[in-house]
Amino acid sequence: LATRDQQWADVQEDETHSSAALSWVSSANTADTDFPIQNLPFGVFQKDGTARIGIGIGDQILDLRWAYQKGMLSSLGGLAPLCAEATLKPLMEKGRAAARQVRRLAFQLLHAGSAQQERVRAGLVSMQEAEMMLPVEIGDFTDFYTSVHHARRGGKIARPSSPELFPNFKNLPIAYHGRASTVVPSGTLCRRPWGQFLTGSNDLSHMAPTQKLDFELEVGCYVGPGNHHGQPIALVDTPQHIFGVCLVNDWSARDIQRWESQPLGPFLSKSFMTSVSPWVVTLDALQPFQVPPADRGDDAPRLSPYLDSPEHRLKGGLDITLQVLLRTSRMREDGRDAAVVTETRYANQFWTSFQMLAHHSSNGCNLRTGDLLSSGTVSDSEQSRAGCLFELTWDGTTPIPLPNGEQLTYLSDGDEVVFRGRCSRDGYRSIGFGTCSGLVIPALSQYPGARA
Amino acid sequence: LATRDQQWADVQEDETHSSAALSWVSSANTADTDFPIQNLPFGVFQKDGTARIGIGIGDQILDLRWAYQKGMLSSLGGLAPLCAEATLKPLMEKGRAAARQVRRLAFQLLHAGSAQQERVRAGLVSMQEAEMMLPVEIGDFTDFYTSVHHARRGGKIARPSSPELFPNFKNLPIAYHGRASTVVPSGTLCRRPWGQFLTGSNDLSHMAPTQKLDFELEVGCYVGPGNHHGQPIALVDTPQHIFGVCLVNDWSARDIQRWESQPLGPFLSKSFMTSVSPWVVTLDALQPFQVPPADRGDDAPRLSPYLDSPEHRLKGGLDITLQVLLRTSRMREDGRDAAVVTETRYANQFWTSFQMLAHHSSNGCNLRTGDLLSSGTVSDSEQSRAGCLFELTWDGTTPIPLPNGEQLTYLSDGDEVVFRGRCSRDGYRSIGFGTCSGLVIPALSQYPGARA
Repeated sequence: LATRDQQWADVQEDETHSSAALSWVSSANTADTDFPIQNLPFGVFQKDGTARIGIGIGDQILDLRWAYQKGMLSSLGGLAPLCAEATLKPLMEKGRAAARQVRRLAFQLLHAGSAQQERVRAGLVSMQEAEMMLPVEIGDFTDFYTSVHHARRGGKIARPSSPELFPNFKNLPIAYHGRASTVVPSGTLCRRPWGQFLTGSNDLSHMAPTQKLDFELEVGCYVGPGNHHGQPIALVDTPQHIFGVCLVNDWSARDIQRWESQPLGPFLSKSFMTSVSPWVVTLDALQPFQVPPADRGDDAPRLSPYLDSPEHRLKGGLDITLQVLLRTSRMREDGRDAAVVTETRYANQFWTSFQMLAHHSSNGCNLRTGDLLSSGTVSDSEQSRAGCLFELTWDGTTPIPLPNGEQLTYLSDGDEVVFRGRCSRDGYRSIGFGTCSGLVIPALSQYPGARA
Repeated sequence: LATRDQQWADVQEDETHSSAALSWVSSANTADTDFPIQNLPFGVFQKDGTARIGIGIGDQILDLRWAYQKGMLSSLGGLAPLCAEATLKPLMEKGRAAARQVRRLAFQLLHAGSAQQERVRAGLVSMQEAEMMLPVEIGDFTDFYTSVHHARRGGKIARPSSPELFPNFKNLPIAYHGRASTVVPSGTLCRRPWGQFLTGSNDLSHMAPTQKLDFELEVGCYVGPGNHHGQPIALVDTPQHIFGVCLVNDWSARDIQRWESQPLGPFLSKSFMTSVSPWVVTLDALQPFQVPPADRGDDAPRLSPYLDSPEHRLKGGLDITLQVLLRTSRMREDGRDAAVVTETRYANQFWTSFQMLAHHSSNGCNLRTGDLLSSGTVSDSEQSRAGCLFELTWDGTTPIPLPNGEQLTYLSDGDEVVFRGRCSRDGYRSIGFGTCSGLVIPALSQYPGARA
């Protein structure tokens, strides 16, 4: 078992984490890029009508199919053809060591001293010209509820006369199954959904476009190798089963959610759409930013053994700073940039991504390559650092002033929501996640299912 | 729009519904077969190591790949090669008219007057020798909560001091997303899952094999052609989007469910396994058994227009009689048959399969070919006709006596649970669903994730 010192020695010896490393792709060396050579995230993009795997570097993408066809991946042996597939699934299946080999080879091809610079340059595609797609077909999408601050504040708003937290919260990472068919890549327009909700104090619901459209700022991870049905994954093995991490916007309709959720949880209030950032940041790239999980507090019950390990206590947390930016249609018309409406930290979650995976499989449920596990809303202890408008505006009752004087409650048609995430640590190069964005468009004018 | 009389005229004119029709496969002509020539359900089975589509007839399967290779499906044109695939997906995608064409051709090949009897006989495989598989890869599995009797009785047991029904129940078909990766074909062993639950009256949970393992008797339907993301399906169009119907056992761990379900609904208490009967009975075969939906009662709110249509009022219900049989290990040792522990009717559900589909897509959520929508527990108004042990035994407090004197509360290791379903109507041949069965095996002896 690695001690904390050994862990850091490993990270420090790894040339791909060296803050001194530079790329010959100049945009990868700017201070504000999310994709310096220390990151090298995986994604799938479309070019010439075909989907390809790429690695993000600065504002460019290294086309791995092209690199494979040019024979540049031959040192990867049997892994090389997997890099020429149209989805990340075959590579994800091979596990963490495989992803590490590909990332290291990309590092060699792209670092400033590479002898192959001139050859490789022809395989770069500008991010501006590429259409990013889902990295993998998602078999099952699971959404957790791992922020104690989100749970507490949500409880205060929704159930003011009851205890803030349900008694189970600190015993297990609560979750529900989400809808896989409506997970879409960043940039997909978000159509305001219709649904049933209450308008008065009586129990008469009506069907209308939601009046409480919200975002949920989340961090997702993709399952690499899966487990067999019936065989739980031990917490210490979970890092071998996570391919990488992305940002997730679990768009929510709060009025529909409130009406439909008893007793089986949210359904149509979430299933209309979930956006993901298209770049998958590998666990290897995140190694320098693994930190101890957040303090559980004095009143927390002892952790069940399947959710605890000495290694996890050292580095179960991921220190990711998250931001939500918003641009209204008026801001867009006036040429204004998007405004930051909240900023929060993933390291403060009560449960970690590794605990989610261990819990999910603890009943024998099999996870499959490409499954997406998301954190639920990432909210901090202060209300102004919450991860959704339900909390930030106290269910729409206390608007947030925007820089141009507009008042933000829930989302309006024309609002554009942009998530960003970034990892920073003294002595290391900061890396980021790119964006997870979506523009809200008006509801269908027709009643659902009505014929023209 | 078809009136009720026109509808019955159509059904009566259809030779595949004629009670006089017989098959040259003699086992299809017995009174108790589930698979007379009036049924002809679709399934996928394994033979010689390859998966094939088959049609059930008596105790035999017509191998459609074989029939395709022998040129017997040429009248199907472009549909013929789809019958030689390893999954039903390509055929399901083509919609109800395609399934109808294949079923009609099978009727011609298999009916007693068929000139091709001798040729076709070589394409029969005994059901006893075939291993049945999932008919299609299930993208998303959704489980509803559509029995008012189940909801009421469950409310009484779980929340004795609150109103039995939540106020939303009669306004919309409540549902939650289930786990697709653990949907398995009938016959798969059900391993008792570990999980967290409370044992005392305090809030100290512990991790142990569930002590309240239950079945849930449900009726599922498979989506045929899907809808585009953002485009709801009108209730009147839903019959074109349902390929067919099967039985579903949504195995449940009631102690885990009780502890984990607030506020987001059941998760690990359900995701360890869900069994489906492998034969998919088409909507065409079910036509004679379409009945008006159950009476909503005087106190029910007016139906939202997207959940109502004149046609649906005529034939939204499906009249399926459902049975649960159970055989303990002692009964097996003593050579006893399984005993019927409950019998109930799908026609008494408060919401129908068609309303489920319309509601599911009403927010624009896209359903995809092969998605499974299940009804939730089918329970009748009498406690003895409930669809799960939670109700039948009042959460394990009032055991059911079995014929050999054993007392049934929750499921024990070695118990075998068998679901059956059957449609009957005067003037029509009864058709059935085959079985959805599973044998309970002991929990893993090791703590979840512990290493040997």
